[in-house]
Amino acid sequence: MKLWQKEGVSTAEQIERFTVGRDREMDLYLAPFDVQGNLAHARMLETIGLLTTDELTQLTTELNAIYAQIGQGQFEIEDGVEDVHSQVELMLTRKLGDVGKKIHSGRSRNDQVLVDLKLFTRDRLWQVAQAIERVFNQLVKRSEQHKDDLLPGYTHLQIAMPSSFGLWFGAYAEALSDDMLTLQTAYRLANRNPLGSGAGYGSSFPLNRTLTTELLGFEGMHVNVVYAQMSRGKTEQTALTAIAAIAATIGRMAMDVCLYNSQNFGFLILPDALTTGSSIMPHKKNPDVAELLRAKSNRLKALPMEVTMVLSNLPSGYHRDMQLLKEILMPAFDEILDCLSISEFMLEHLQVKPNLLDDSKYDLLFSVERVNELVLQGVPFREAYRVVGKEIAEHTYERPTQLNHTHEGSIGNLGTDLIVAQMKQALDGFGATRAQEAIRQLVGMIE
Amino acid sequence: MKLWQKEGVSTAEQIERFTVGRDREMDLYLAPFDVQGNLAHARMLETIGLLTTDELTQLTTELNAIYAQIGQGQFEIEDGVEDVHSQVELMLTRKLGDVGKKIHSGRSRNDQVLVDLKLFTRDRLWQVAQAIERVFNQLVKRSEQHKDDLLPGYTHLQIAMPSSFGLWFGAYAEALSDDMLTLQTAYRLANRNPLGSGAGYGSSFPLNRTLTTELLGFEGMHVNVVYAQMSRGKTEQTALTAIAAIAATIGRMAMDVCLYNSQNFGFLILPDALTTGSSIMPHKKNPDVAELLRAKSNRLKALPMEVTMVLSNLPSGYHRDMQLLKEILMPAFDEILDCLSISEFMLEHLQVKPNLLDDSKYDLLFSVERVNELVLQGVPFREAYRVVGKEIAEHTYERPTQLNHTHEGSIGNLGTDLIVAQMKQALDGFGATRAQEAIRQLVGMIE
Amino acid sequence: MKLWQKEGVSTAEQIERFTVGRDREMDLYLAPFDVQGNLAHARMLETIGLLTTDELTQLTTELNAIYAQIGQGQFEIEDGVEDVHSQVELMLTRKLGDVGKKIHSGRSRNDQVLVDLKLFTRDRLWQVAQAIERVFNQLVKRSEQHKDDLLPGYTHLQIAMPSSFGLWFGAYAEALSDDMLTLQTAYRLANRNPLGSGAGYGSSFPLNRTLTTELLGFEGMHVNVVYAQMSRGKTEQTALTAIAAIAATIGRMAMDVCLYNSQNFGFLILPDALTTGSSIMPHKKNPDVAELLRAKSNRLKALPMEVTMVLSNLPSGYHRDMQLLKEILMPAFDEILDCLSISEFMLEHLQVKPNLLDDSKYDLLFSVERVNELVLQGVPFREAYRVVGKEIAEHTYERPTQLNHTHEGSIGNLGTDLIVAQMKQALDGFGATRAQEAIRQLVGMIE
Amino acid sequence: MKLWQKEGVSTAEQIERFTVGRDREMDLYLAPFDVQGNLAHARMLETIGLLTTDELTQLTTELNAIYAQIGQGQFEIEDGVEDVHSQVELMLTRKLGDVGKKIHSGRSRNDQVLVDLKLFTRDRLWQVAQAIERVFNQLVKRSEQHKDDLLPGYTHLQIAMPSSFGLWFGAYAEALSDDMLTLQTAYRLANRNPLGSGAGYGSSFPLNRTLTTELLGFEGMHVNVVYAQMSRGKTEQTALTAIAAIAATIGRMAMDVCLYNSQNFGFLILPDALTTGSSIMPHKKNPDVAELLRAKSNRLKALPMEVTMVLSNLPSGYHRDMQLLKEILMPAFDEILDCLSISEFMLEHLQVKPNLLDDSKYDLLFSVERVNELVLQGVPFREAYRVVGKEIAEHTYERPTQLNHTHEGSIGNLGTDLIVAQMKQALDGFGATRAQEAIRQLVGMIE
Repeated sequence: MKLWQKEGVSTAEQIERFTVGRDREMDLYLAPFDVQGNLAHARMLETIGLLTTDELTQLTTELNAIYAQIGQGQFEIEDGVEDVHSQVELMLTRKLGDVGKKIHSGRSRNDQVLVDLKLFTRDRLWQVAQAIERVFNQLVKRSEQHKDDLLPGYTHLQIAMPSSFGLWFGAYAEALSDDMLTLQTAYRLANRNPLGSGAGYGSSFPLNRTLTTELLGFEGMHVNVVYAQMSRGKTEQTALTAIAAIAATIGRMAMDVCLYNSQNFGFLILPDALTTGSSIMPHKKNPDVAELLRAKSNRLKALPMEVTMVLSNLPSGYHRDMQLLKEILMPAFDEILDCLSISEFMLEHLQVKPNLLDDSKYDLLFSVERVNELVLQGVPFREAYRVVGKEIAEHTYERPTQLNHTHEGSIGNLGTDLIVAQMKQALDGFGATRAQEAIRQLVGMIE
Repeated sequence: MKLWQKEGVSTAEQIERFTVGRDREMDLYLAPFDVQGNLAHARMLETIGLLTTDELTQLTTELNAIYAQIGQGQFEIEDGVEDVHSQVELMLTRKLGDVGKKIHSGRSRNDQVLVDLKLFTRDRLWQVAQAIERVFNQLVKRSEQHKDDLLPGYTHLQIAMPSSFGLWFGAYAEALSDDMLTLQTAYRLANRNPLGSGAGYGSSFPLNRTLTTELLGFEGMHVNVVYAQMSRGKTEQTALTAIAAIAATIGRMAMDVCLYNSQNFGFLILPDALTTGSSIMPHKKNPDVAELLRAKSNRLKALPMEVTMVLSNLPSGYHRDMQLLKEILMPAFDEILDCLSISEFMLEHLQVKPNLLDDSKYDLLFSVERVNELVLQGVPFREAYRVVGKEIAEHTYERPTQLNHTHEGSIGNLGTDLIVAQMKQALDGFGATRAQEAIRQLVGMIE
Repeated sequence: MKLWQKEGVSTAEQIERFTVGRDREMDLYLAPFDVQGNLAHARMLETIGLLTTDELTQLTTELNAIYAQIGQGQFEIEDGVEDVHSQVELMLTRKLGDVGKKIHSGRSRNDQVLVDLKLFTRDRLWQVAQAIERVFNQLVKRSEQHKDDLLPGYTHLQIAMPSSFGLWFGAYAEALSDDMLTLQTAYRLANRNPLGSGAGYGSSFPLNRTLTTELLGFEGMHVNVVYAQMSRGKTEQTALTAIAAIAATIGRMAMDVCLYNSQNFGFLILPDALTTGSSIMPHKKNPDVAELLRAKSNRLKALPMEVTMVLSNLPSGYHRDMQLLKEILMPAFDEILDCLSISEFMLEHLQVKPNLLDDSKYDLLFSVERVNELVLQGVPFREAYRVVGKEIAEHTYERPTQLNHTHEGSIGNLGTDLIVAQMKQALDGFGATRAQEAIRQLVGMIE
Repeated sequence: MKLWQKEGVSTAEQIERFTVGRDREMDLYLAPFDVQGNLAHARMLETIGLLTTDELTQLTTELNAIYAQIGQGQFEIEDGVEDVHSQVELMLTRKLGDVGKKIHSGRSRNDQVLVDLKLFTRDRLWQVAQAIERVFNQLVKRSEQHKDDLLPGYTHLQIAMPSSFGLWFGAYAEALSDDMLTLQTAYRLANRNPLGSGAGYGSSFPLNRTLTTELLGFEGMHVNVVYAQMSRGKTEQTALTAIAAIAATIGRMAMDVCLYNSQNFGFLILPDALTTGSSIMPHKKNPDVAELLRAKSNRLKALPMEVTMVLSNLPSGYHRDMQLLKEILMPAFDEILDCLSISEFMLEHLQVKPNLLDDSKYDLLFSVERVNELVLQGVPFREAYRVVGKEIAEHTYERPTQLNHTHEGSIGNLGTDLIVAQMKQALDGFGATRAQEAIRQLVGMIE
């Protein structure tokens, strides 16, 4: 039974199967948020006289019951019911009759999906932010722990200058603090109220959109109703772009782990419990976990382009194509959260090989130190560079024994406190508390 | 229990969950092909003395039993078994003991996956070819049926010159016949034998790869074992590129349907059974089916890039990243087959609006006809163009009543037989019969 | 002559041509920023005793002279000189001898490119922000001007509900105000100081990075030197993602223009001066400008993926691959600025067709108004929906004559002031004044 | 002066600059092919009575003169002339007056661009095929030369089994022979005649398209004129997909070179003349050439997606967007030809490090050999695997001294002749001779 079904007309079965697709599966992600949206809308309808106070109480009680049911994992979309919005409306109507039917006043399903998606996305982006913070903390901890463990630094995959595990772990920590800015932008775009935009052209009811903005804890409103509808796709795109930015950081770290764990580098060791074997080579301990982190990150990095492709060259106004974006967005949150959790676990157990630079094959790493020794003795830089080049060519080069890096962010001065402060500031910038507080009040609003 | 598990060492649970991922689900697609590969390998092992004739008979009997089980939908990968290859080996070993263990001689799981993927991909590409043929037939039928129904032709979305539904349907038919070439290339790349490449470095057993090439009906061999391994990813990529090419054709046709079905064009009508309604607007009959064809096509078009992203900058040799490609490739076949089937259904039921060009707003479509009239009277083309431009500007232009297009592929001479011949030639070029015959013999080879 | 050239060793000519590529052309974009970086570095070197006050004065004078030369378009990279950094150093050394050579102390070319790229990107992003503001102003103006001109609103490309040109223009204005958030994030990532990171592993000189951060007007520092190097690619990626977001807005608007300008819609008219003709059809006035805006936007939208592809799976540390990103980034700024400028011009001249909804083919647009009439009379929404559906089916439906949309962001209440305030806030958030002020001081710092 | 310009109407200057863009630069690539198309069209027009024999002679003479001028690099598109087609027509008209104007009969610029693009693409794809053959020959030569030089084989970047430089070079040779299949498909799609399709809706002139197909040496015709126009974009896409496939092979090889040239591997040495240095580290010899091959390959790999993005969701019929594809396609041919030429050069000079496996750190590479020894002694494979695993754990493992790989494509039996035969067959499949012969006759056809 569809909300829009007319008597005597039915959709061909193949068409129905094709058009419904995975919508019902995806819609389960939206269920709690659909109830939140309905609670706010109902509350507002009462203030403009489209619901009586008594009707509001009935609806609120029933919606809270459904919310609890969802929380307990007992909510489902029944066979033949098209989507989560129809299911909720059906449950209300079963219990409350005509009162249940009134809740759709001033809305359309486009509006419902939009609101649900905003609330869902806002919620998941904050979960991602918190998961990042945990990985960040692990990186900061390992960075401090290994600040004196030196590591060859490479450019062009050629040995270049001395680096350290302090720097290596710390670099990824700071990368995440920057990725947080992109995440925050996605959060802010998700944190705008589209409720009241209807099918993208507003409503002739005297809706109070400012009120629902407050009730749902949104930072602001998508003002123009045509734009509110146009934000469909853009919200998903921006969220996936933020996920892709994080995936790029995680994926690069994973590539480093794969390389540094190769016998030819031997800088990092994955404990046996993090490796897998080969069906044919008895000696293998493979870093599948890091490889899959890399591969999954790469898939996530392709998703913004997938969304772009779906939306490209579509004129304004809703198109059913947009429904398909749910299948791209929703599993992506599960995937990035999974990757972040495994990254945290891997980082905790990764073993660092000490004293790497004692190996004479790394002597040339110190050639710049030698150049700088000369510069500090007054030789102009370009001159010193030539001298040391000659020493190397004539095998008279000797590796300096001292490493004295003191500036901000260098081996000897990691600047961890600055990085930690950046992360804290980024997290504070989300303003997530406000949203959470509003939802808590809304859902508890029965009295 | 893993094939590679060593005593006293176990993989952390999170790592196991993360690394296994959706592999077991994906591997069910491969089951019949894994048995085919095993049958051919066993047969060959006997010829080089690594199996006795009796052992071969035991293995063949058992493998055929498993094959039948798969065909009846009763095969499953048990809990704790890592993949389809381990499951098959486990079943053999349970029944045959040590003989079952012998079948892995000269192989590795990389080799098994590779072989299975080639056979699976070859099989599915041929299924796609057949589904395309059905859509093609429908397009050809509608093209002939509507060869006299004129349609405005557009360039720059501006009305341009007369076209016809005969041309419109026929254009997509011919497009599919060209897409078949790309599909055929993918088929040929899938139709190469990698069996014997082991972990990508071959084997010290005296394998007879020419024999397994014949037994499995492959067109040829991936000769170099390092390259055979390198074809992992390339096979998937090429198959997905072919799928994307088809999706581009289907997607563009779907865009045309959406546009032509809009009230502002009104060229095509979707019968009610192919439309869906709106929860708010009682008058709506929406072409969701065409929109979703378009959107699903667009997602498919993004997949080659997704594979490219996973593989980019990976050095040669197997990486676990490649396992993730299964999740991209396998559902893509289901999706394109679904889209082709729905396209066929939609094309069958699409209604064409007759007499479109009677509307005077389309008069200017005939301006080139007017120019050509003058040219045929001896006026040089550029001159005639100026004259007609002036007629239009001064409102003295009169629309010619005759349309006389006779050359190959024009409104009056669709050239359907040429297009049908192209399609037939493309289909014949696959050489699919040979592969099918070989598999039929292999699987029946018990005596 | 290369900075790194050793006696008796020279690079093969083909290799040189291939590796230099378009670097010299791209580097001209960086010239003024290279001088800015050098000015700040020199000033800092003096404070830590690596330059005397007199040497600083000489260098500053000379750098300012070069800066002026660049401003007058007279700077060039001489034949045989590898890049802008070498050219500037060469010019200093020619004039100042050994003093010129000293300016490279504590730096490497990686560091120089990084600093230049940050300053260049910061500068261009702000130019883009200002160009967006101009398009925004035009949209706001047209939105207010046409707030009473109604327009059919579509969903699924089917006529749906009444819209207006006020809403249509306003929607794109608000879209740009949201795109500004993504642009701001890109700006903030570009506004971080990498100076002092050397080849990605810092320096043993006691550099004062806090000082150069202030001198260059950066908002903050890329603290960790390994991360500073890792920001290469990420800076470009984030900037291109912001450009792509803007391009998506512009491209969609252009698609609307193409469609609305088609004779079958006829909502918008491009004046003749904005159209082009056909070589064969004398009646054509084609909207090439809108089509190219759309196509160029689409190309821009692909660029973030291009960068991702280049960087994917590269381990940490500099790779020459990153140089190639300049060819992606730099022309993209020219392109988006060009598109924005043409958009502004097109929006200024676009003509709106009045009284569109008088046409009876648009009567059904008002079906929701009719439903709402009934709801306001007390009929529950779902009931009213059925009644109107029946009216339409039985041809008793009559179009309401009144349209009374009053809520925030609706036809009757566009909320332009809210949108303008959002844009203002977004622009202020860049903090661009601080950067501009610092550069002005730095470049004037001769006394 | 435009072909379509009307009196008293002119296009705004900004619009003109924006719409012309880089078209004139790109059109120079098309000049010789435009003349070829004109020669064939004129010849055909004479057979259907639209040109007299005398007019044909005049046109042919003049076109041949222009062709010669192009060959000598003296052709240019004059200021104010829109494109190559207008330039050629202008030159004819200047010399021949009205006769020059006649050559446009039955054509439109869409048709001209299409024909030129097909001929250009066909020509360049064959150039690419020949360049690939040269790289292939180099790879085959090095493979044979180093068939006894062993190399560690990796899976998961972990040392796995013995490989050889014979296998490594040979793998890339075979990869190219497979890429040739994709290239051939692109060639065949480019090798179809669209002449006569006009603006995408054919012509009312009785054109003989079969004749022009023969004259231009096309393998066949795009029959349906709507489809012929639709092939715009598809031709470019397919060509770029083939280029991307080759780039993927080249890019992966380049990644291997970068890695194997790293001190931590040390398998390959780039002679000094192929390396570049560092401005700060006197010891550096960087493999920029391989890095740029990798990066340029990655950019090329992104181009098919760029084309897809431009075309996505455009309805059928010509759109100006398609013009922009020229800027993607044409430079891509230059780039891939450049990359192939540098690859050939690099492969010629790459030095192989001998006796790599003498290093004891590679002992475990032989563990499978040890397992196989046991299997050949009758131990079931899974049993042998366990035994050797135990030997390794208990440090009793001893590396076998013999390596005896004999099957097709293995270390001891590279199968070079099979691979060479594959390449030859692929090259023959293009049928390029036919096209070349036809063009030679056409251009010489003055008598």
